[in-house]
Amino acid sequence: MDKRSRSYDREELTELENAMVTIMRVFHLYSRYQCKLKKADLKKLINKELPQFIQEIHEPQVLDQLIADLDINGDSEIDFQEYSTLIAMVTVACQQFFVHKESK
Amino acid sequence: MDKRSRSYDREELTELENAMVTIMRVFHLYSRYQCKLKKADLKKLINKELPQFIQEIHEPQVLDQLIADLDINGDSEIDFQEYSTLIAMVTVACQQFFVHKESK
Repeated sequence: MDKRSRSYDREELTELENAMVTIMRVFHLYSRYQCKLKKADLKKLINKELPQFIQEIHEPQVLDQLIADLDINGDSEIDFQEYSTLIAMVTVACQQFFVHKESK
Repeated sequence: MDKRSRSYDREELTELENAMVTIMRVFHLYSRYQCKLKKADLKKLINKELPQFIQEIHEPQVLDQLIADLDINGDSEIDFQEYSTLIAMVTVACQQFFVHKESK
């Protein structure tokens, strides 16, 4: 069987792999499998799926700036690569709160 | 209470936020909260925490190249920002397998 079409059972995956599948699944949910997110859908995603984390980003314009910067190819839609960059940026921004709490 | 020290209960977090906390936790586990990962620890992390996904990356040198490219500041250690870039790259590389399966 061609390895590319091997399907996964989420129980086979590690916690980290499942976390990455969650990141993919949320994108596909909001993009309705169109491989691109409209900016309005991205805002909905952020407000609905990252409610706690965006509270940590105190200046709202930081988020708007993040979204504006994301649209690297300027097609006013966000592709999966641009979305993954946002997730990585927010993860980095928020990790300082978790290091502080988890290392006590 | 200063908002920065507000602590989270993982049940409060959405699935996407919990996925991002998992990404943070795995980094801290392998870096022993030192905020930097030695390349050898990163390889251990990849082999142990991403066993299924690295199978999808058929050419082993792709992974070695990824790790080499990661060390952006050239200190032969991987900080959280560089690690998040790796996670984003692998997520993008593997998402094509999931779109294919999930959209059927």
